[in-house]
Amino acid sequence: MTTAHSNRGLILKSRPKERCSLENFSLVDIPLEPLRSGEIRIETLYLSVDPTNRIWMSDMPGYMPPVALGEIMRALGLGRVVESASPAYKVGDYASGLLGWQEVVTVDAAHVNKVEPIEGVPLSLFLGPLGMTGLTAYFGLKHIGKPKAGETVVVSAAAGAVGSIAAQLARQAGARVVGIAGSDEKCSWLKDVAGLDATINYRRADSYDALHAALQAACPRGIDVYFENVGGQTLEAVLSLINLGARIPLCGLISQYNDAAALHGPGNFEQILMKRALVQGFIILDFAAEFGAAARELAPLVLGGKIKYQESIVRGGLEIMVDAVNMLFDGKNSGKLLVELRHQGI
Amino acid sequence: MTTAHSNRGLILKSRPKERCSLENFSLVDIPLEPLRSGEIRIETLYLSVDPTNRIWMSDMPGYMPPVALGEIMRALGLGRVVESASPAYKVGDYASGLLGWQEVVTVDAAHVNKVEPIEGVPLSLFLGPLGMTGLTAYFGLKHIGKPKAGETVVVSAAAGAVGSIAAQLARQAGARVVGIAGSDEKCSWLKDVAGLDATINYRRADSYDALHAALQAACPRGIDVYFENVGGQTLEAVLSLINLGARIPLCGLISQYNDAAALHGPGNFEQILMKRALVQGFIILDFAAEFGAAARELAPLVLGGKIKYQESIVRGGLEIMVDAVNMLFDGKNSGKLLVELRHQGI
Repeated sequence: MTTAHSNRGLILKSRPKERCSLENFSLVDIPLEPLRSGEIRIETLYLSVDPTNRIWMSDMPGYMPPVALGEIMRALGLGRVVESASPAYKVGDYASGLLGWQEVVTVDAAHVNKVEPIEGVPLSLFLGPLGMTGLTAYFGLKHIGKPKAGETVVVSAAAGAVGSIAAQLARQAGARVVGIAGSDEKCSWLKDVAGLDATINYRRADSYDALHAALQAACPRGIDVYFENVGGQTLEAVLSLINLGARIPLCGLISQYNDAAALHGPGNFEQILMKRALVQGFIILDFAAEFGAAARELAPLVLGGKIKYQESIVRGGLEIMVDAVNMLFDGKNSGKLLVELRHQGI
Repeated sequence: MTTAHSNRGLILKSRPKERCSLENFSLVDIPLEPLRSGEIRIETLYLSVDPTNRIWMSDMPGYMPPVALGEIMRALGLGRVVESASPAYKVGDYASGLLGWQEVVTVDAAHVNKVEPIEGVPLSLFLGPLGMTGLTAYFGLKHIGKPKAGETVVVSAAAGAVGSIAAQLARQAGARVVGIAGSDEKCSWLKDVAGLDATINYRRADSYDALHAALQAACPRGIDVYFENVGGQTLEAVLSLINLGARIPLCGLISQYNDAAALHGPGNFEQILMKRALVQGFIILDFAAEFGAAARELAPLVLGGKIKYQESIVRGGLEIMVDAVNMLFDGKNSGKLLVELRHQGI
């Protein structure tokens, strides 16, 4: 075991207006100081690439404050403990949490979550179906969507890390599940591999009317649950088709993040009243007490192939993070997007 | 006891584009037929005047279908049974329900609710705080808003039939309550009589920025519950100030009813996600099983003066109904608006 003497990381230098670029960041190399009591040092193995990274770069008020200029860029990650001044961790343990865009993380042990590896399960899954994204799908359906057998569930960004798990969990509950995604390949995966009942490629249904017609055809009995990841006209089209008592877990509004001027609420907001629907925003951190139980419930479904899972792992150094975030908005990746940092030891 | 031989009523002839007018209705006089088994005949004493009357005149999809052209205009009312072919009612009993704009109502007994008069309580209260509007406030707070002591609750249309009860029930729960209303007199009533902590006259705060500033000043600790009756920019201003975990019972969107072109959702809809807020539409009919218990809980509060109550009773014939509906949109009435039909017996 070697011990690093410095840490390379990317700090936010300026806030991107639209796409982020490397010009918004500075690569710094910070000497490491001795651990204080209660701290641990982690070498970053995987960094999670999520739409929320883009929100944190802006000064939009969110569920967490924006990343301050001059701070290490915030991101979820998973790593291996290389030094510990906490009784809760020993060298070689694994932890996940807000590691940030840096190669070595020094953190209070209470601020990360221990990961208990499972024999035969790749570590990266703990940043996917057994981690934040899978659990987000799980809690959004369990506590808000509550799909019942025979109901119709629509999932937007259905081929994404959260959406694909949400769609399959709704299938497990016996619902008719319709997935909306951005390419024919994604739709094929959703239908042929994940077993959804119907899919809509929103790039082919590229006007409000076309999207509405496609949804209506795919949901002949209306929509009971809408697992919302995108916002914009997709939300409007869904609202126009919801049944009485519909539930809408609000997990993301990705269509609204890149362009502050385009932010708008659904024009048919009154449908929420008329259909006595429930719309609720949530984040997984609200359910921290239930993480363990949820992972234990999901693991056999994933390992047994009942829930299919896609991940895209990009390998490279820290410089690749910016491109990886932009990939999310191009709709080019399928499933959970991760960066595996090139170096595996420090 | 005399028995009427015919029934005068107003049928919907055409759908109003903006305000409704008498030209949208025809006065008809329909001969009465013998009761069938299970039916009762009611003479209308009071008709309730509510924003939903205006919705029912349009062809907008709502929680009930629009009134069809050629049908008696739909409205809540309260009356006295004058003939009964149902074992559940005897002559002289009182009932409330969808009596419609007509002087004599022939209805299946199962389709109205029996009213048990309370000694010393005016019958009209069963169309107000002890009826649909009071119970709407009660259920919206009990099941969705759930105000806690020390929280901040904002109520729009706070001087209205529903809003005034919601605001006072929130005060009873120990919350700081801020009411938004449309005149200084209404605001004075809310502060001096109903005991609210602060009020905003939205006609004085007549831009988004002014309304936002007034709300911010009145809610220094943010907003935890918003009892929503109006929609539009008031909703936007509130959303910009909600706290994490805010609850928004969606009771009405009155600013949005008269002008289909102006319908729009809140521009900062994403706040619902960011603040993990809950927005839920509801109508009182969802809670029918709890009506009795709720009225028993509210009656002593109203009779004991803990909940102040205003009603405006307009006396006149059926022709006055159209003007009464338009009064709601002028903001001229305070509290529950009722029409007492001129004749008291048939």
